Amino acid sequence: MSERIVYLNGDYVPESEAKLPIFDRGLIFADAVYEGFGILDGQIVDFIYHMHRLQRSLGELNIPMNFSFDEMFHSLMRLIAENRAQTGFLYLHVTRGAGDRAFHYHEQYQPNIFAFTQGEKFDADGSAVMIDLATYPDLRWARRDIKSTNLLAQVMAKQAASQAGAFEALMVDEDGMVTEAGSSSFFYVKDNALYVRPVSNEILHGITRQTMLRVAEERQMKLVERVYSLTEVLDADEALITASSIYVMPVGKIDGKVIGDGKPGAFTLALRAGYLERARAEFYQPAQ
Amino acid sequence: MSERIVYLNGDYVPESEAKLPIFDRGLIFADAVYEGFGILDGQIVDFIYHMHRLQRSLGELNIPMNFSFDEMFHSLMRLIAENRAQTGFLYLHVTRGAGDRAFHYHEQYQPNIFAFTQGEKFDADGSAVMIDLATYPDLRWARRDIKSTNLLAQVMAKQAASQAGAFEALMVDEDGMVTEAGSSSFFYVKDNALYVRPVSNEILHGITRQTMLRVAEERQMKLVERVYSLTEVLDADEALITASSIYVMPVGKIDGKVIGDGKPGAFTLALRAGYLERARAEFYQPAQ
Repeated sequence: MSERIVYLNGDYVPESEAKLPIFDRGLIFADAVYEGFGILDGQIVDFIYHMHRLQRSLGELNIPMNFSFDEMFHSLMRLIAENRAQTGFLYLHVTRGAGDRAFHYHEQYQPNIFAFTQGEKFDADGSAVMIDLATYPDLRWARRDIKSTNLLAQVMAKQAASQAGAFEALMVDEDGMVTEAGSSSFFYVKDNALYVRPVSNEILHGITRQTMLRVAEERQMKLVERVYSLTEVLDADEALITASSIYVMPVGKIDGKVIGDGKPGAFTLALRAGYLERARAEFYQPAQ
Repeated sequence: MSERIVYLNGDYVPESEAKLPIFDRGLIFADAVYEGFGILDGQIVDFIYHMHRLQRSLGELNIPMNFSFDEMFHSLMRLIAENRAQTGFLYLHVTRGAGDRAFHYHEQYQPNIFAFTQGEKFDADGSAVMIDLATYPDLRWARRDIKSTNLLAQVMAKQAASQAGAFEALMVDEDGMVTEAGSSSFFYVKDNALYVRPVSNEILHGITRQTMLRVAEERQMKLVERVYSLTEVLDADEALITASSIYVMPVGKIDGKVIGDGKPGAFTLALRAGYLERARAEFYQPAQ
């Protein structure tokens, strides 16, 4: 069985050879950001939106972005081709770079950049799969809008969910308000309205979320944008999550309680189909 | 100029050869913990206390500790000898290990362990150096008691402090209460009492802090253990910070405001000398 090919600082190398110095600040301080993209039809889903978010995350941390969107597009497309990936997940990681251990970063660092592909969790074009959630306290830091690798709170949440027999965690703050899922955005439907938590520093600005909301707006679905409690969520008609690794998926149970009638709802199925259609219509075309 | 020798999974290698897979969960999820030790007289300061904290951090994350304290002691002492380090800083890092990217950790991972030495910031036996602080919002997650590598909030705080001309950050929560310094514990003295923030999940359980407090108790200093505000701190007679990389140091200014009379105070100097004496008296002796 041949190894995956991984992108590392401009090179394409077998995964077993892809290594970074132990002095990389990504390891020492989690001083790094990342993006996860869906791969559909051998193409990168929502490429330009993810790149804008990556640029923002890097900017918030003053890590230089030393590549253009088009350069990265060509690098990632070559990575996809090297791995003959038609569907799946594409991961891109940028660290500030390696150096002697010091929290501040006056020194000029050279960012380390790597990317890899991974198989898809669910058949994108297959039937919707009901996802069970388990609640967990939201332990994360105050800058959840930065897509950094400071992910231990999410690791703890998703491990606890997994041990509870659920696929994903639903994170709840100290006031009983739902923030989002462990590694996906969360929504619910009640009385024919789609409930959406507004963007702030308290949640990640989900790219799949954003594209799905454009689909919802085009279809003139009623949107209610506000913070909501777990109590409200448990009374929903439908619940759904979005992420670049799963696109749009219906939620089955939360902490064992069945949401709605326990089947994929009409809103969710329409948004799922609409999302995939929209994603395919918007594959990025770089300038020649 | 010869390279440092670094400890990596049982081997002693030149630092330029010390690398970890890009798939290490320490890089991908900051799923890793660490300890920093002082080196004095070629010995490891507070070794056993740091190891107990490391064991606790690993336990909180269900990362197996696959070495005994004595095994690690011998490995670290050899590292110190390889680098002929008489004084300085010793860093030890344990990640959950490498694997395909998935937040949960059902898979059996093999922890990756590395350690390195670094030069000291200040002459341990030299005069006390006044340290200036700059305040910054405490953006950290809710499990600050775990000494994990999720350190981006501290990187931001210490970078901001450094840009403001200060050596260290003083982190202040949303209610105006001081939690601790960027990478050190914080204390102040007012009316001949030493003010100490109690341990909780809101601060790291500092090892240098703990040993220094034993010194304070032996000397029958009056301790007041409670949460305190920045307003109270700015009115202090003395302020001080502790960390394994600096031991005990007096604080000069906070956000430009001189604390006390701007000179190292009597409490601070007594605790600094007492700490170093105590550390030297307590160097760990493993069973033969």
